[in-house]
Amino acid sequence: MTDKTRRQGRIIGVGLGPGAIDLLSVRADRLLRDATHIAYFRKQGAAGRARTLVAPIIDETAPEEYAMEYPVTTEIPLSDPRYNQLLSEFYDSCTGHIASLSNAGHDVIILCEGDPFFYGSFMHLFTRLQADYPVEVVPGITGMSAAWTATGLPMTWGDDVMTVLMGTMDITKMRDALAIADAVVIMKIGRHFKKIAGLLEETGLASRAYIVCYAAMADETIYRLSDYSEDRLPYFSIIVIHGQGRRP
Amino acid sequence: MTDKTRRQGRIIGVGLGPGAIDLLSVRADRLLRDATHIAYFRKQGAAGRARTLVAPIIDETAPEEYAMEYPVTTEIPLSDPRYNQLLSEFYDSCTGHIASLSNAGHDVIILCEGDPFFYGSFMHLFTRLQADYPVEVVPGITGMSAAWTATGLPMTWGDDVMTVLMGTMDITKMRDALAIADAVVIMKIGRHFKKIAGLLEETGLASRAYIVCYAAMADETIYRLSDYSEDRLPYFSIIVIHGQGRRP
Repeated sequence: MTDKTRRQGRIIGVGLGPGAIDLLSVRADRLLRDATHIAYFRKQGAAGRARTLVAPIIDETAPEEYAMEYPVTTEIPLSDPRYNQLLSEFYDSCTGHIASLSNAGHDVIILCEGDPFFYGSFMHLFTRLQADYPVEVVPGITGMSAAWTATGLPMTWGDDVMTVLMGTMDITKMRDALAIADAVVIMKIGRHFKKIAGLLEETGLASRAYIVCYAAMADETIYRLSDYSEDRLPYFSIIVIHGQGRRP
Repeated sequence: MTDKTRRQGRIIGVGLGPGAIDLLSVRADRLLRDATHIAYFRKQGAAGRARTLVAPIIDETAPEEYAMEYPVTTEIPLSDPRYNQLLSEFYDSCTGHIASLSNAGHDVIILCEGDPFFYGSFMHLFTRLQADYPVEVVPGITGMSAAWTATGLPMTWGDDVMTVLMGTMDITKMRDALAIADAVVIMKIGRHFKKIAGLLEETGLASRAYIVCYAAMADETIYRLSDYSEDRLPYFSIIVIHGQGRRP
């Protein structure tokens, strides 16, 4: 029998920012130091980037931990219905566990790289929980902010249009979007790198493009696109093309 | 005679985030608590939003302050060459003062609302200083992150294209950009509100649009676009249209 008089615990998606411990917000830092239960996504067999990032804060306070390990989907194409079904079951299962913690009165902090509502896995939990549970979100510094900061050049001026694109998207749509944008961010590049580099060459943007790997992290590296000779980029890589708008 | 042996002070553009004191990063918070010299932009006759935001931190430590007051430009149209000249002289003058502080060995923290390299006035100082002075930048949570967080709906999913537009931009270009975007942010709206609302109606986006005023601040207010009946928006208002991409 469920104890209906017990207060549901808060569920808080906390943006951790781009990957430096002191780029957490003060609010995120406090929530983590006081946390009794944390949850985070990670690849099977990995420590998890989010968990590793916050180690300096939580290792002292030793909260209860719930690691949500992504199912292995590399052999199922994105277009296969089984892909969506597998992920959907995974998010349902994670949601069930977090809901049970909340029902038991525990506050649960969900670690979110970057900003929780900006292309984040947390959003799949959020949409499943929000109707029945007290879910809150703490915004964070995005990886793209850290990437353009790392280039040492301002990103957007005056009336510049800035467009954010995924390397996994349709290449024709990407070409159309590039034609209108003044400033461009491309994320989730990985094995799509050669295709994207070719498109940037074709559209005359390649000479202005920077590659930032592991922005704000210890292994941060910045290249001009024209100086990068590998066939693919590490997962945490962002292409940045700065705007050129009005500047008095 | 300049003392060439003296170390130049660091000049640090510090992102303050969207407007809540605990949404500063831990790094920004520490830099401000240790600051001996701060500089910030403000309108003539106003306390300044950036300065007001950090009052709880710096009022104890009482650093030296340099308020950079924008010249009044309301009577000069953007297209008039005098507009650019007036602003350029203003930024030159601010740069000169900050450079003199650095030459005297002082570290100077420049307060930047949001993220310094994202449509920020700081960028005009940065480009004038970077060749000759040690200038650093601390990224911040953008106002747009706080705005979509305030709506309580995730912003971008899967391969969604997100586009950031300025209300001050050419309306034809805005129409073209809206045609390609899945998720949209519109900033600097003010007196352009009616024109933009009309365009969102025309393009079928109005029913999905939210208005967020003063995101993350004490007077944060959220409207559906269809429920907003005034002719203009306050300056700190952002229109948010959420993406609808893949979600297992």
